[in-house]
Amino acid sequence: MALKGSLVVISGFSGVGKGTVIRHMMETHEGYAYSVSATTRQMREGEQDGVDYFFISEEEFTRMIRDHELIEYTNYCDNFYGTPKKFVRRMLEQGKDVILEIETQGANLIRRQFPDALLMFIMPPSGEELLNRLNGRGSETKRVIRQRMQRAAREAECIDDYDYVFINDKVEECADQIHSLIISQKARTDRNFEQISKVRREISEYLKGE
Amino acid sequence: MALKGSLVVISGFSGVGKGTVIRHMMETHEGYAYSVSATTRQMREGEQDGVDYFFISEEEFTRMIRDHELIEYTNYCDNFYGTPKKFVRRMLEQGKDVILEIETQGANLIRRQFPDALLMFIMPPSGEELLNRLNGRGSETKRVIRQRMQRAAREAECIDDYDYVFINDKVEECADQIHSLIISQKARTDRNFEQISKVRREISEYLKGE
Repeated sequence: MALKGSLVVISGFSGVGKGTVIRHMMETHEGYAYSVSATTRQMREGEQDGVDYFFISEEEFTRMIRDHELIEYTNYCDNFYGTPKKFVRRMLEQGKDVILEIETQGANLIRRQFPDALLMFIMPPSGEELLNRLNGRGSETKRVIRQRMQRAAREAECIDDYDYVFINDKVEECADQIHSLIISQKARTDRNFEQISKVRREISEYLKGE
Repeated sequence: MALKGSLVVISGFSGVGKGTVIRHMMETHEGYAYSVSATTRQMREGEQDGVDYFFISEEEFTRMIRDHELIEYTNYCDNFYGTPKKFVRRMLEQGKDVILEIETQGANLIRRQFPDALLMFIMPPSGEELLNRLNGRGSETKRVIRQRMQRAAREAECIDDYDYVFINDKVEECADQIHSLIISQKARTDRNFEQISKVRREISEYLKGE
């Protein structure tokens, strides 16, 4: 039987604002759980262990890989990032819609393990707007921005692996569109088995009773 | 390339109120077209040719079958009902979401010809409520009601062929849920090919220009 909650995979170019969209969606609606990734990268200012990431050592990360405790993992800029399996399963079983913000390489791996996962890609309105947003951060050098645009070009080739694309023009609108889609999936036939069985039973009871 | 409009197949037990739900949805939202069926049955009071059905002769219906002008057809209570192909195709090409209200037998045939069709089944909150609604019509004899409940029991076996189920408890809510699902499907990746290509092109132009 299908799980009550959806596993929602969200990817998008660096700088597209996917973090902001996800935060807005989770703040304005109930029923979501954010899948916290494990990472071996250094904690940045303002980040919290167990909230932004589980910050772990490379040794511990390697152990989790070996013990199949990660749904997917990837190496990005010499750091490991991975999705702990246990947390995701527990949330889905509780009926939560679990948001998984990951790199494009991980998406297909998730699909193989969770065939019903909703794979979403967040796009900028245009290439120029993506560049503006990367520049707007102020903290990145020209070289880093070029690297991010090169990475975006590679990631853009993976969009076809996703089920849905959303354009992040206005954060609120993009978040609402994603939320609507997630809600609409609760009407899937395989998630409404109990209601269907109930009505079938009631109709057949009437026919017997006549 | 995927069509801009969705083909939306809506089925449901006789008496569940699917006609009312569809009417409400089409009256409160734009962008829909209702697929008018062809039928050989007698016109009832208040019905209009070309609006409720295309009322045609059995000879003409047989010719349309022979010339493959129907997407699906069925025989119900000694009358033929079918979906003219031309109208549906034209509306989908114009970007309309086409609503097709059909019997359960037709749903699988549609799926084979339109793999992206959204198959929806409208259910009553309970078997008892279905009976109430059938009795509420006032025009049906006890025998006819029993026949409809028997038919509902058979149709209930087909629900698994549908993608989504909706419970028609309150017409407005049911219509809104269906509408939300149809709108959310516009975010499908294969329907946003142009936007994806545009952003890919813009990113690669930036990288060349640097």
